[in-house]
Amino acid sequence: MPQLRKDSVTGRWVIISTDRSRRPSSFESVPKPGPARLCPFCPGHEDNTPPEILAYRKSDTEPNKPGWSLRVFPNKYPALVVEGELIREPHGLYDMMQGVGAHEVIVETPDHACDMAQMNENTIRDVLWVYRERMMDLERDRRLKYILIFKNHGAAAGASLEHAHSQLIATPIIPKKVLEEIDGSRKYFEFKERCVFCDIVRQELIDKERIVNDYDSFIAIEPFASRFPFETWILPKTHQSSYLEMSESDFTVLAHAFKDILLRLKIALNDAPFNYVLHTRPVSKDHHEYYHWHFEIMPKLTKVAGFEWGSGFYINPTSPEEAAAYLRSIDINAQVQPEITVTVKEEN
Amino acid sequence: MPQLRKDSVTGRWVIISTDRSRRPSSFESVPKPGPARLCPFCPGHEDNTPPEILAYRKSDTEPNKPGWSLRVFPNKYPALVVEGELIREPHGLYDMMQGVGAHEVIVETPDHACDMAQMNENTIRDVLWVYRERMMDLERDRRLKYILIFKNHGAAAGASLEHAHSQLIATPIIPKKVLEEIDGSRKYFEFKERCVFCDIVRQELIDKERIVNDYDSFIAIEPFASRFPFETWILPKTHQSSYLEMSESDFTVLAHAFKDILLRLKIALNDAPFNYVLHTRPVSKDHHEYYHWHFEIMPKLTKVAGFEWGSGFYINPTSPEEAAAYLRSIDINAQVQPEITVTVKEEN
Repeated sequence: MPQLRKDSVTGRWVIISTDRSRRPSSFESVPKPGPARLCPFCPGHEDNTPPEILAYRKSDTEPNKPGWSLRVFPNKYPALVVEGELIREPHGLYDMMQGVGAHEVIVETPDHACDMAQMNENTIRDVLWVYRERMMDLERDRRLKYILIFKNHGAAAGASLEHAHSQLIATPIIPKKVLEEIDGSRKYFEFKERCVFCDIVRQELIDKERIVNDYDSFIAIEPFASRFPFETWILPKTHQSSYLEMSESDFTVLAHAFKDILLRLKIALNDAPFNYVLHTRPVSKDHHEYYHWHFEIMPKLTKVAGFEWGSGFYINPTSPEEAAAYLRSIDINAQVQPEITVTVKEEN
Repeated sequence: MPQLRKDSVTGRWVIISTDRSRRPSSFESVPKPGPARLCPFCPGHEDNTPPEILAYRKSDTEPNKPGWSLRVFPNKYPALVVEGELIREPHGLYDMMQGVGAHEVIVETPDHACDMAQMNENTIRDVLWVYRERMMDLERDRRLKYILIFKNHGAAAGASLEHAHSQLIATPIIPKKVLEEIDGSRKYFEFKERCVFCDIVRQELIDKERIVNDYDSFIAIEPFASRFPFETWILPKTHQSSYLEMSESDFTVLAHAFKDILLRLKIALNDAPFNYVLHTRPVSKDHHEYYHWHFEIMPKLTKVAGFEWGSGFYINPTSPEEAAAYLRSIDINAQVQPEITVTVKEEN
């Protein structure tokens, strides 16, 4: 069973998850994108995955058979498992917990070769909608404190299978960066009596230079203190602390925003690997006034990552203003793109 | 000039450093390890780097000429620059600062093909000693709050040149992870009146299973809540808040510990890329009782990094107990290594 362990100095929890045995040398082999005929996420291969939790499928088709347009099932090699009591226990100085939680895979399309930037907006809307469905279901489990939804696109971003999919990890603790955001936005609220993210949206609408696009109820920006080149956030323009507060019509707008941003990034960065993470309030219903949900999209362009992990100190060679100007200049319908130079620093 | 910008939500500072212009597509080209004849860090190529700040060289040789065994110079493409006033300024909601600081390169050996695991212990001792020399010099600059020393080994860990080198970045702010460690260890001290790192050393000496090796005044462990497979810390066994508190004889022992650990990691992980970061107290002399300096070595084996950056939530597929047992089993003098299986989980 996986274990949650707490760092005694910083309070950060990590999952120690040791399900499969390999020799250390096999760390080196990056999983190659396989052909569709071997892909466990493709239609006809449903018996290669755990039984589905939920699927959007034609009404005359059976579960775990072809006929679906979107499919959710538990991760075959889960980082956390649903069964078990939530027992905190000491080990001398140290703290640990059983690795109780959920780890699900969301296969976004039956089409092996279609990535999210290529999907039509209805398909993207289904993906965004199923995030909501799974969150609402899992929020009923009292053991769970946070539901983390993310996507790895491309091997360098951690995807071991190329077929388009998202993942969900529901944890009995609140991830450290989420806690930091909540603490930071609470302090800002105590001082200003305004939501810091609402103020960021206002500031960006004044400055304009870091806006990639404005979609009625959502805005896409390159954040002022971007950690990575072309880091992009999508935020609701009005205050919403939880992803679950979105209206049905918001989902249509958000799907359009995703299509637009992912296509711009794909064209601008030659299909670079990326991750996105949904930042939303924890399962407990507080944090309503000062937290503000959003997506953070992080293209993986630079390799200078190791010491950033160790120090929390980021060096970004591309200014968000330049990145936003470049992304705005992309014509998502054109074949030939404008020649614009973006500044990048070589690491020595 | 580089800029320091503060994230309004979490308070994290980042460096926006835009010195050289390239097209975004050039992000993809990973710098290839070049032959020695093209390497700017090799003897005879001193005029390809900025003038040296310090070198260990034969007494009859001139600065910026061959004859050195170790050489320190400013980074040609610095993330921060020495010249300039430290001015904090607002931009609407946001905070920024001029990118004042230092960014230096330490070339560890004239031998292009020799990595740190292959160096003799005297050479490693020189590298560790020059860290001290540069820290003592830079601590006199009142603008600087922290001196960050790190090493990237291998392209996947961010090294753009293969010739063995370390880097030093001196910053007018304290990096966020260092602040978190200091806050955490202060809270522990307030509660227990003991240093948490000293307690970790005690706990590890009781448990034994996470110790890789014990070197008289230092200990090398796989930390209880390791974020990465084979994450390794080297700590002084007695309380020292700063790297500068080490005795001269400690440097000899630490050089031996580095040689031993880096060789074990190199053999165990087939020369995997790695980063190490020196964690020491900030320039200001407080934090004496509760902070405890150490090195954190992070092999780069898994690619599942993007969402960890976004969430602060780490999934480690190898338990520190297994990693330590494997590293202990390595015979650093043998040609053939034992067959030991280490558990690793495939991502979804």
